[in-house]
Amino acid sequence: MAVYLDYNATTPLAPQVIDAITGSMRDHWANPSSNYTVGKESKAAIEKARGQVAKLIGGASENIVFTSGGTESNNIVFNCILREGEVPHVITSTIEHDSVIKPLNHLKDNGSIELTCVKPVNGYISVSDVMNSVKSNTRLISIMLANNETGAIQPVKEIGEVIRLYNINNNKIGQERILIHTDAAQALGKISVDVQELKVDYLTIVGHKFYGPRIGGLYIKGLTSNETPYKHFFAGGGQERGYRPGTENTPMIVGLGTAAQLVSDRLIHHMSHLRSICEYLRKRLKEKFDDGVHFNSSDSDCLPNTCNFSLTASHLLQGPVILRHLKSSQISLGAACHSHDTFKASFVLLESGVSEDIALNALRVSVGRETTRADIDIFINDLSQAVNDIIIK
Amino acid sequence: MAVYLDYNATTPLAPQVIDAITGSMRDHWANPSSNYTVGKESKAAIEKARGQVAKLIGGASENIVFTSGGTESNNIVFNCILREGEVPHVITSTIEHDSVIKPLNHLKDNGSIELTCVKPVNGYISVSDVMNSVKSNTRLISIMLANNETGAIQPVKEIGEVIRLYNINNNKIGQERILIHTDAAQALGKISVDVQELKVDYLTIVGHKFYGPRIGGLYIKGLTSNETPYKHFFAGGGQERGYRPGTENTPMIVGLGTAAQLVSDRLIHHMSHLRSICEYLRKRLKEKFDDGVHFNSSDSDCLPNTCNFSLTASHLLQGPVILRHLKSSQISLGAACHSHDTFKASFVLLESGVSEDIALNALRVSVGRETTRADIDIFINDLSQAVNDIIIK
Repeated sequence: MAVYLDYNATTPLAPQVIDAITGSMRDHWANPSSNYTVGKESKAAIEKARGQVAKLIGGASENIVFTSGGTESNNIVFNCILREGEVPHVITSTIEHDSVIKPLNHLKDNGSIELTCVKPVNGYISVSDVMNSVKSNTRLISIMLANNETGAIQPVKEIGEVIRLYNINNNKIGQERILIHTDAAQALGKISVDVQELKVDYLTIVGHKFYGPRIGGLYIKGLTSNETPYKHFFAGGGQERGYRPGTENTPMIVGLGTAAQLVSDRLIHHMSHLRSICEYLRKRLKEKFDDGVHFNSSDSDCLPNTCNFSLTASHLLQGPVILRHLKSSQISLGAACHSHDTFKASFVLLESGVSEDIALNALRVSVGRETTRADIDIFINDLSQAVNDIIIK
Repeated sequence: MAVYLDYNATTPLAPQVIDAITGSMRDHWANPSSNYTVGKESKAAIEKARGQVAKLIGGASENIVFTSGGTESNNIVFNCILREGEVPHVITSTIEHDSVIKPLNHLKDNGSIELTCVKPVNGYISVSDVMNSVKSNTRLISIMLANNETGAIQPVKEIGEVIRLYNINNNKIGQERILIHTDAAQALGKISVDVQELKVDYLTIVGHKFYGPRIGGLYIKGLTSNETPYKHFFAGGGQERGYRPGTENTPMIVGLGTAAQLVSDRLIHHMSHLRSICEYLRKRLKEKFDDGVHFNSSDSDCLPNTCNFSLTASHLLQGPVILRHLKSSQISLGAACHSHDTFKASFVLLESGVSEDIALNALRVSVGRETTRADIDIFINDLSQAVNDIIIK
């Protein structure tokens, strides 16, 4: 019996989400742009979901746009700040997800933006490093809310507060404000996320990381009042109030709303469960491997479900070698998006200050709502056996 | 009991498609980029669907990329032909869908392309008009396979053949070939579509027009051999072999495959049913309204399910007025994407040579697999009653 411990790669859909999507495929198939009753019912289902997603992040419904996923949401954000005849400066970090760093590098390479990538200190971006990177043409700061590999929760809230004060000053001298974007893909469903607290202008929402479907959303502060720049990425029809052309994927949107509602209803409970399982995992790893385990995830300021560690007893214990020897545990080395590349130490870990020999041995375990202590026991046994097999062989 | 006669706006999902998506949400939730068994099973499900979609259009699996829908597919195509330091010329028609004409106009407006919009003659694009528009920098011809409002099947195949010969000649003098794109959104599931026959380089696939889900695909001829230019529109992870970043929406992709398979298996049967219902509709309209009905759809070279007509007995019988008086029939005036605009005569009809007073009275009826003669009888009675109400009042 396989034990799935890779919930940061993706989560199963909650049974309520599957039911909501299946029901919606039957009930809301009409075109939401059609003016007759069934069309209006589809539209109403979308608006209900918009409210549920807005509630998840403490935002207003009108500021949510549904997208095909996190990659689209992130690409939209970076497109929003481009203007004819200007080269805006963007600050990001060296440990962002591909869907942030690749579009930003693309825009840098074609001369559309200037880009500064701040390096974390022990896995965490420092607010002062970000502020020291600000230039007169800085237009956007994009820092992930939580890292997918280490689980490190980044100080987006602190950056938001400092930038808020900076912007007040800027406004007095007639300068445009600096905008803040956070990719909250890994944070939603695992920690409390509130756009008012974070003081962000854009926030990326990804359903399949919180037991929802493979679509996403984007929060844009003051979208309808044009407070924050917004440009649709595709051109086409007038769907999503003109903000995102293309006939809406109603059933998936309904599923995203349901998944968001489940998080709103049960987050405290989920967090406590995830934390307790993760603590149990750390305890069992320490018992079993003693000084031979090195934790690449902090036990504070970290997603409650994520534990990145390396077994350091031997250089033979590299991540991919362990994965091949595991019989029943489904875990990963890092981002699933990279899993078909030739093996290299995770750049996130190297950038986070982990030495290369330790980074080469890294494993990422991420637990979920369903994970039990018994699952962790199975994993620990599986891992011990794998280690024995590798070292004896 | 409402009668739905707006299958060009969207179709319901086939029960087999709903079942496939629901099953896939349970079985294929793992990340297709993950290397362990459940990840590989998700990937295999996607590849099976790719084969089914490829078969639907007579193409090779490797040339299919899954997208979030027709709007994304069309936007991707136009992005593919852009190159630094060049202003390619594009030929399209004046009766394309918003998801074609709007991105093309956007690219024209920002100076990225030159654009020629060919006007149809009696609803049909003429091959010689297209060829007369070709210039030395013409890089792409984008003509829809079938019009969404009138059902007119455009001579994409004939254009493909003429351009093939033109390209052979161009090749001899060292010139690049002209590429052909067709948006097949309205054609798939209603007529036979074969990329070899059509000789197109790009073909847009939209699930929700053939009883599939709200995602889409794009066929790109010789994608893996770089025969046809291709650039991903989003930047991000390596999903879809790098052609379309973003974690794959596996269940919807499986649903698209299932919908494609159903069409492959039953197209002849469906076509014959649609045609027979549509003929019955025309017959009943003629019986009921005699000279008072004007058909804006041809009865040949037309989608078998589409009948666009105007009741011409009175200027009071404008489309929106009739819609308001219909008690049980769900039909439309034209594209659903436009339905919230202020009422104007359909530009498609005006461009197709329909006079403004007739175009103002136009109604689009599009029938589906489920539509029966009894449904048509209900509609005819409903329509007669509406006309009586309007004229007597």
